[in-house]
Amino acid sequence: MEYNRRELMQSVSAQMPEKRWQHTLGVMSSAAELAHRYGGDPDKAELAAILHDVAKYWPVERQRAVIEENGLNKELLLYDKQLWHAEVGAFVAEHEYGVTDREVLDAVRYHTSGRQQMTLLDRIVCLADYIEPGRDFPGVDRIRELSMKSLEEGLIAGLDSTISLLIAKRRIIFPLTVLARNDLVRKLEGTE
Amino acid sequence: MEYNRRELMQSVSAQMPEKRWQHTLGVMSSAAELAHRYGGDPDKAELAAILHDVAKYWPVERQRAVIEENGLNKELLLYDKQLWHAEVGAFVAEHEYGVTDREVLDAVRYHTSGRQQMTLLDRIVCLADYIEPGRDFPGVDRIRELSMKSLEEGLIAGLDSTISLLIAKRRIIFPLTVLARNDLVRKLEGTE
Repeated sequence: MEYNRRELMQSVSAQMPEKRWQHTLGVMSSAAELAHRYGGDPDKAELAAILHDVAKYWPVERQRAVIEENGLNKELLLYDKQLWHAEVGAFVAEHEYGVTDREVLDAVRYHTSGRQQMTLLDRIVCLADYIEPGRDFPGVDRIRELSMKSLEEGLIAGLDSTISLLIAKRRIIFPLTVLARNDLVRKLEGTE
Repeated sequence: MEYNRRELMQSVSAQMPEKRWQHTLGVMSSAAELAHRYGGDPDKAELAAILHDVAKYWPVERQRAVIEENGLNKELLLYDKQLWHAEVGAFVAEHEYGVTDREVLDAVRYHTSGRQQMTLLDRIVCLADYIEPGRDFPGVDRIRELSMKSLEEGLIAGLDSTISLLIAKRRIIFPLTVLARNDLVRKLEGTE
């Protein structure tokens, strides 16, 4: 993976408010830590972390256009707009920043929703996004604790907190998140 | 719908413990009430209620055999055994008790899981199963209250309580239940 780290960080940070960039730096640090702890590739984890929210503050109509005009997953358009930036981010990472590593692109693409059969890198980036030091939501400390013992336990707790929040707010639950969570529960139970 | 109500009740009650039969009587009463309140067919609601748990106390291996040997929905076998009796019950209602009404059979089939595009009768039976007078679980009173105002609000609260319980117990969430719940939320929001 050859890229100019400083230039990439500068370009990505210019596309979001300072506060979100601080969050991205937090995800970089947590993702590196999780990669170290669980045998992931720290360089890939860092690259995915830098890029994960690149499109998050793009106007939603621009996000929609990227999805519609490039044959991306249109099913997302039927769900919460908060899910769009991950799909758009993976596209931008590939086509504007020249990232070719499929694992990195997938980790960006699924960092919000999760998916079935999450790779090690998917899990690291998704969990880092929940536990980075700047996060402060009910239950985050328990997720952090679990994350020290098991990547999967931490991630299940994270995804469960998302599902519970959507229930509490009576918002639509993205089905893939439930499938991702079920899949991890089955893995831990050894029933798959 | 011609059937001997007394004989049917006797035959169904013989297939479950007395306590579960009391629950069935409760579901009959709640389903009739909901049908009255929301313009459903009280006879169909009663028939579905009588039959909804007919197979619940069958040995699970017998339930599995019915699903496997009759081309029923085998996907259920990958999920919680608690879901099987609804599919088996609909089969038994049709093939052992001669019920031909598709609406009644579907209300039995989906009374535990829910489904997308639930019919009025599906909703009535599924919600009655949550709120019948014998039920006593955390949150049941709120579901009962909501049920007086809106069939859909009551049912969403019921399905949400199931999803939350599965999260708390770290058990697999049946995806169709989430789709059923999302579908009702969308209906109330008027976004479908």
